[in-house]
Amino acid sequence: MYPRGVKMNMKKIVVAGGGVLGSQIALQSAFCGFDVTIWLRSEGSIERAQPKLLRLKEIYLNTLEAMKTNPAAYCRGFSCENELSADKINELKQKVEDAYDSITLTTSYEEAGNDADLIIEAIAEDPKQKIAFYQELAKHIPEKTIIATNSSTMLPSAFAQYTGRPEKYLALHFANEIWRNNTAEIMGHPDTGQEYYDAVCEFAENINMIPLKLKKEQPGYILNSMLVPFLSAAEALYADGVADFETIDKTWMLATGAPLGPFRILDVVGLTTAYNIGMMNPKASDPDTIEGKVAAMLKEKIDAGKTGINSGEGFYKY
Amino acid sequence: MYPRGVKMNMKKIVVAGGGVLGSQIALQSAFCGFDVTIWLRSEGSIERAQPKLLRLKEIYLNTLEAMKTNPAAYCRGFSCENELSADKINELKQKVEDAYDSITLTTSYEEAGNDADLIIEAIAEDPKQKIAFYQELAKHIPEKTIIATNSSTMLPSAFAQYTGRPEKYLALHFANEIWRNNTAEIMGHPDTGQEYYDAVCEFAENINMIPLKLKKEQPGYILNSMLVPFLSAAEALYADGVADFETIDKTWMLATGAPLGPFRILDVVGLTTAYNIGMMNPKASDPDTIEGKVAAMLKEKIDAGKTGINSGEGFYKY
Ligand SMILES: NC(=O)c1ccc[n+]([C@@H]2O[C@H](COP(=O)([O-])OP(=O)(O)OC[C@H]3O[C@@H](n4cnc5c(N)ncnc54)[C@H](O)[C@@H]3O)[C@@H](O)[C@H]2O)c1
Ligand SMILES: NC(=O)c1ccc[n+]([C@@H]2O[C@H](COP(=O)([O-])OP(=O)(O)OC[C@H]3O[C@@H](n4cnc5c(N)ncnc54)[C@H](O)[C@@H]3O)[C@@H](O)[C@H]2O)c1
Repeated sequence: MYPRGVKMNMKKIVVAGGGVLGSQIALQSAFCGFDVTIWLRSEGSIERAQPKLLRLKEIYLNTLEAMKTNPAAYCRGFSCENELSADKINELKQKVEDAYDSITLTTSYEEAGNDADLIIEAIAEDPKQKIAFYQELAKHIPEKTIIATNSSTMLPSAFAQYTGRPEKYLALHFANEIWRNNTAEIMGHPDTGQEYYDAVCEFAENINMIPLKLKKEQPGYILNSMLVPFLSAAEALYADGVADFETIDKTWMLATGAPLGPFRILDVVGLTTAYNIGMMNPKASDPDTIEGKVAAMLKEKIDAGKTGINSGEGFYKY
Repeated sequence: MYPRGVKMNMKKIVVAGGGVLGSQIALQSAFCGFDVTIWLRSEGSIERAQPKLLRLKEIYLNTLEAMKTNPAAYCRGFSCENELSADKINELKQKVEDAYDSITLTTSYEEAGNDADLIIEAIAEDPKQKIAFYQELAKHIPEKTIIATNSSTMLPSAFAQYTGRPEKYLALHFANEIWRNNTAEIMGHPDTGQEYYDAVCEFAENINMIPLKLKKEQPGYILNSMLVPFLSAAEALYADGVADFETIDKTWMLATGAPLGPFRILDVVGLTTAYNIGMMNPKASDPDTIEGKVAAMLKEKIDAGKTGINSGEGFYKY
């Protein structure tokens, strides 16, 4: 670990992909003072990314404004300080405006790669597309550049060889709504160099993330390694007719003091994601297994448009 | 369901066993106005049960006293009302004293069985001993008596035939520290009569428990069906060297808003219980499996006396 306070010399951060996560990582990094470039595949991608950034800027500004009067609005990604004066919040709002204005969008590998300290890959979860991207990228970046993937389901060891710099390649995994859910799981593969791992941990802290350090590769990182079996067990109880989902949630909340039960969490995660994870298990294709009953139960809801909190209804109505 | 407010005519409750849970169920039921008899196997058992009841009485009284000034001391098992005046609390304290004085302890099946409305079996978790108890009990109880088991790990269908009244037999599963953790999982077997199931739900409410209703038999009920895979996943991450236990706890708490992570929960549950549950899986006996590594990790702590919160140290120090 670098001693706290001693900054690595990271200046230029490149985010590849301007989707849900890419746009968040870019704005957050710029907000925290980094020089940010978003690399996008096409002019069409640039046109799709711009309104995402604008919407995010509004969310940042509105949330900060709300924090002036409502303590419940507080988001850890904006500042490590719990108590912020209105003046300080106005300063942070100005930083959001400046950050938004400062972000460069480009389709050029040269422009993105030139002098990049860290490239965070947040393109679609498709190994072929990621590999093609890494192979082309490798031709355009200087020796020093570290590359991190935000992939939720794939391991860095699956891609390291295509980057041309396996020792400078690892995973930096954010959570959706980065300004609020400010965790960053950091995971190397067997050949990741410790100094690059440490540098990425330091970067995560510098953009107000709480680094959660993995000591070895683990599919699902830390969170999903626990969340998936937990949610699957809850889904199985319900699909098997053991209890109502409300009873299952109540049991968990009363017994553990948690603010949400598994079916509320499923509504937040989204039923489509839960279904896709379930379908990775071959048993889910057999309707006579409990995994198959879970899949059928989720599919019925998805087909009815009840995909979770984002659609206004999942297990619960919102 | 019986309409709320219409009381079943349960008056006499018998608790079989005066251990950790039996003593709690007895005092709580007496506190809520039932006529309570504890049936114990021997005079020696009576001598061991008496100081447990006395200690519990002191806990009830001290907790109620603390509730006068400290809102955090509030325990849901004492009253459904959130705001209690000092006068009301003094009334409840008097009820504790009266309850304690009213409990009958006996080794006689006749005295216990005579006119019993509900017998709650809370004897040691040993099927042979439970069967012998049910077989003898069946000879001494009237037609009307309902029998419920508090067993954590066994299914009511395994014992129903020995009670002589399978339709009036089911599980009523409490949590340790019943006055605070006031949940009651209620689970029938395929031949349990609905009216008796409903009557036990009503009884649970009448002793200030929140009934958690299972619609069919499920090993581990609702809570342990989720808790066991969740805790096992966390243990596996740690035993496999993926991350520190503090990091794993932090990840869970930050991501789900839960007040405790899995290793704090393990300290509350107790590492011996966790170890025993793990050893039910044959893989745990093979040191090369991840289950075997988990078992070895827990055994090392248990052998060092670090069995959890009750011993002052488990994963954390207390
Ligand atoms: N959505 C989440 O909650 C979440 C959370 C953590 C990590 N992730 C990970 O982040 C990554 C991106 O996810 P997302 O939700 O932002 O996806 P998204 O679909 O919102 O965005 C994907 C982005 O990748 C671009 N893209 C697609 N194909 C490409 C290609 N061939 N070359 C270059 N760019 C391409 C798209 O234009 C878009 O900008 C994935 O690896 C995902 O696993 C997502
Ligand atoms: N301890 C917990 O947290 C907990 C929680 C929920 C349910 N339970 C269940 O409650 C039951 C009792 O557990 P406990 O923790 O109170 O155990 P305990 O060891 O504290 O008490 C067991 C009681 O059973 C009596 N007993 C032992 N053998 C007997 C026999 N042959 N005949 C009659 N009585 C006998 C003992 O004298 C003692 O009073 C078990 O079925 C257990 O699974 C325990």
